[in-house]
Amino acid sequence: MKHKFNVVKVGSTTVGGGPFSVWAGPCSVESQEQFSLTARKVKEQGGAGLRGGLYKLRTDPRAFQGLGREAFEFVRAVKKDVGLPFVSEITDARQIGDFLDVVDAFQVGSRNMHNYALLKELSQIDKPILLKRGFAATFKEWMLAVDYLAKGGNEKIILCERGIRTFETATRNTFDINAIALTKQETPFPILADPSHGTGIAALVTPIALAAAAAGADGLLVEVHPNPPEAKSDGYQSLNFAQFEDLMHKLPKVLTALDRKMATV
Amino acid sequence: MKHKFNVVKVGSTTVGGGPFSVWAGPCSVESQEQFSLTARKVKEQGGAGLRGGLYKLRTDPRAFQGLGREAFEFVRAVKKDVGLPFVSEITDARQIGDFLDVVDAFQVGSRNMHNYALLKELSQIDKPILLKRGFAATFKEWMLAVDYLAKGGNEKIILCERGIRTFETATRNTFDINAIALTKQETPFPILADPSHGTGIAALVTPIALAAAAAGADGLLVEVHPNPPEAKSDGYQSLNFAQFEDLMHKLPKVLTALDRKMATV
Amino acid sequence: MKHKFNVVKVGSTTVGGGPFSVWAGPCSVESQEQFSLTARKVKEQGGAGLRGGLYKLRTDPRAFQGLGREAFEFVRAVKKDVGLPFVSEITDARQIGDFLDVVDAFQVGSRNMHNYALLKELSQIDKPILLKRGFAATFKEWMLAVDYLAKGGNEKIILCERGIRTFETATRNTFDINAIALTKQETPFPILADPSHGTGIAALVTPIALAAAAAGADGLLVEVHPNPPEAKSDGYQSLNFAQFEDLMHKLPKVLTALDRKMATV
Amino acid sequence: MKHKFNVVKVGSTTVGGGPFSVWAGPCSVESQEQFSLTARKVKEQGGAGLRGGLYKLRTDPRAFQGLGREAFEFVRAVKKDVGLPFVSEITDARQIGDFLDVVDAFQVGSRNMHNYALLKELSQIDKPILLKRGFAATFKEWMLAVDYLAKGGNEKIILCERGIRTFETATRNTFDINAIALTKQETPFPILADPSHGTGIAALVTPIALAAAAAGADGLLVEVHPNPPEAKSDGYQSLNFAQFEDLMHKLPKVLTALDRKMATV
Repeated sequence: MKHKFNVVKVGSTTVGGGPFSVWAGPCSVESQEQFSLTARKVKEQGGAGLRGGLYKLRTDPRAFQGLGREAFEFVRAVKKDVGLPFVSEITDARQIGDFLDVVDAFQVGSRNMHNYALLKELSQIDKPILLKRGFAATFKEWMLAVDYLAKGGNEKIILCERGIRTFETATRNTFDINAIALTKQETPFPILADPSHGTGIAALVTPIALAAAAAGADGLLVEVHPNPPEAKSDGYQSLNFAQFEDLMHKLPKVLTALDRKMATV
Repeated sequence: MKHKFNVVKVGSTTVGGGPFSVWAGPCSVESQEQFSLTARKVKEQGGAGLRGGLYKLRTDPRAFQGLGREAFEFVRAVKKDVGLPFVSEITDARQIGDFLDVVDAFQVGSRNMHNYALLKELSQIDKPILLKRGFAATFKEWMLAVDYLAKGGNEKIILCERGIRTFETATRNTFDINAIALTKQETPFPILADPSHGTGIAALVTPIALAAAAAGADGLLVEVHPNPPEAKSDGYQSLNFAQFEDLMHKLPKVLTALDRKMATV
Repeated sequence: MKHKFNVVKVGSTTVGGGPFSVWAGPCSVESQEQFSLTARKVKEQGGAGLRGGLYKLRTDPRAFQGLGREAFEFVRAVKKDVGLPFVSEITDARQIGDFLDVVDAFQVGSRNMHNYALLKELSQIDKPILLKRGFAATFKEWMLAVDYLAKGGNEKIILCERGIRTFETATRNTFDINAIALTKQETPFPILADPSHGTGIAALVTPIALAAAAAGADGLLVEVHPNPPEAKSDGYQSLNFAQFEDLMHKLPKVLTALDRKMATV
Repeated sequence: MKHKFNVVKVGSTTVGGGPFSVWAGPCSVESQEQFSLTARKVKEQGGAGLRGGLYKLRTDPRAFQGLGREAFEFVRAVKKDVGLPFVSEITDARQIGDFLDVVDAFQVGSRNMHNYALLKELSQIDKPILLKRGFAATFKEWMLAVDYLAKGGNEKIILCERGIRTFETATRNTFDINAIALTKQETPFPILADPSHGTGIAALVTPIALAAAAAGADGLLVEVHPNPPEAKSDGYQSLNFAQFEDLMHKLPKVLTALDRKMATV
């Protein structure tokens, strides 16, 4: 079955339909300075959008839970400063109202892919949804989560493969590169690759990002931090600025080899 | 490390501390007649509590989603009629207020074990929580979900093993019998076994229920339906009344062999 | 589909058809003294057969690889002394000739379930085969391995569930209790449970052994050692003599509750 | 830790150290005509070596088991004709002698990675070993299998990632792209990618092959057949000649973008 590929408008950019979109930023927004520094680096290197966690779903209740509303104002200021759209994870349907003025796309995280109550509400709003795959969801279950959004009327859907849980413990997750190729074969939806969660090891992020591009992904969702060893969450899998520059230097070459190019804002 | 075993009071019965509690009922509450018939059978056979879904989390958006509030009044009537406590799954924090008058314990389903926003709110209330294991959660992650409840002040926690996702497709899930023994060894919490979801095949429910009892489980959460082939959800894994009678006939024998007995209401 | 249950004669005992057979002994045969001491304890406690590794398949090439032929003579002497049959793992088809005089049943280990060259040769001989499930084999693949034996003419097949590999790391493997019940439902073959490998933790062996009996297993394959902390392999999952006595005290009670009894030699 | 990268000489070519080696051919050698046709196509398109099964390990005993010795003579003739080295799977240590004159490298298949008896014998010979990862082997266990070969004296080791078993059923296996990057980071060994088994779907082979190249793989092991729908094994995952040409057209472009090139014979 052949599909027309969906193109999803997010703020001033689009995702899907050919160009390759790099969405980058810190795991958690930690301070105005940290977010601003990172955002400028992302813009400078040709990123198409910003990512950054405001509400964090942490497995350990003692771990940093995000700045929440405290950060809304400076996040808006930074977005305006660099001129890039912003995506952040929603962890509770009651955040929708507040979030509407802050994010250009709502991210549904891996642990909430099965939260159908949340999906039903997001299906009613007029903003794109970045739907991460559940870490133990089959491809088919992921597509049924898509149906929850589409059935409610929201077809502005961007998928994101972020690794699945397997018996392997050498990496945090097993990045399912097959799912990238399968999505392009079987569905009309754009798909981003998240090599940060997909590997859990900063040194593996660039090769897996390049692999995802070669397999047909429409872009990346990647963690970058000015000083990963001091990050409040996920530092071990965040690229530092030099590593991010190296990635952004190699990506366009691989894309050009496959008659593709980087997305612009 | 040796623990004192927690005993959790739920309505007129208790869970944990020695006696074996059978919580039984339909996957979904479908009508007053279906629920009433089933509840009387559960009572007659020596069950300690009722289960029944009011809000269903279904992977497929086209599947039956539960009666919701429509059923509240008759559920209260049936509870009163048979004199058994009732547990039902909460799928959204905004149901808490309404649910307080209907359920004697809130069930957190497998797909919501990682929904930390929901766990935080449930940690603030004064009702027991039946915390199912996420279908792809490690034992350690499950215990961290327990911490979310305990840290917020609610230690009335009952665990429930319901099978995990593995490569095996001959059964719906792989019932993790090791987790039953490990829970009794390592934690003070009572644990129920759900052999209905743990196998996904009605003919396997009784042997796995007996196995769970032999491994030290504090009880069962089991699906029973007056007419499984016509159930609106999960009929293939629901016991019919004759099968339930057979289970309730065998269980006390195995318990007696291990110096245990059935819980009373 | 209803099967007649196969009963497999092994030396002076039988496996399957009702009675419950406990096959016990050390992971590795380490010395005449160690094997003899253990064999007498197994006999004293009502075991139906002995187990003990002569050729070990170890993941790490630096680990103890078994005594091999060096032990053949004293193993025969110990068998004669206690009057119990003996099963041991074959790791290479070229051991068949030598082994014929030592073992009463050939064990095909988990890592060799897919070794179809070995299965074909074992299908030609007139001794029972104890076919362990591959640690990542589906139930269906296991039954196809059975077909390799049966197609070649050897239907003296005893199955053994020993745990499967999953994402869970709290236990060495996930003991698949469902597979015990499924085997009894769907096949005519006797099945033993190996709770030693199925858990990898000595303290969990007894509850899981009792669970397997309650789920319908035809017996156990269990590791016992006079001094587990000094075992050359798998000490952490071996029962000491006191633990084994406790298991053998509880087992007959659970079996009696289910109208079954221990096998005799 | 930084390694020097091993370069392994196989017949007239080498694997590892920079250039990218495509080893291609049918799943099973079925006839002289089929093998010869395929070999010529592989040579024409710039392949560095031939693959083709002579002894097949099939899960189902009723499936085609390979031509075995019957094909030895014409395989040697075809090799000579096209001037490419040949790798084939060994399924039993007793094949070593015969195989020495036919293959330029011995392939240890996924089901035999844990067959330590076989690995020990292969460690004694002076030919390269293509060591496939067990379909449920952790990265660490794979490296311990490498130790069995190296400890015996054979360091001519080429690794091959061929997909692992997970809960996902949309593809035959989950190709572990992380393992490619991890191997290049942590070990000195060359690694090939097998996208045929890694996906089990011909339409996904090319994107995954390109991804593996981008992630740093040293080459491919890929199934090609003149007429996949009529193949005696694995037809659904074999490229036809047009698909293979398309792959061989795209590969050099991606490699050039990363300052690499195709291997020559």
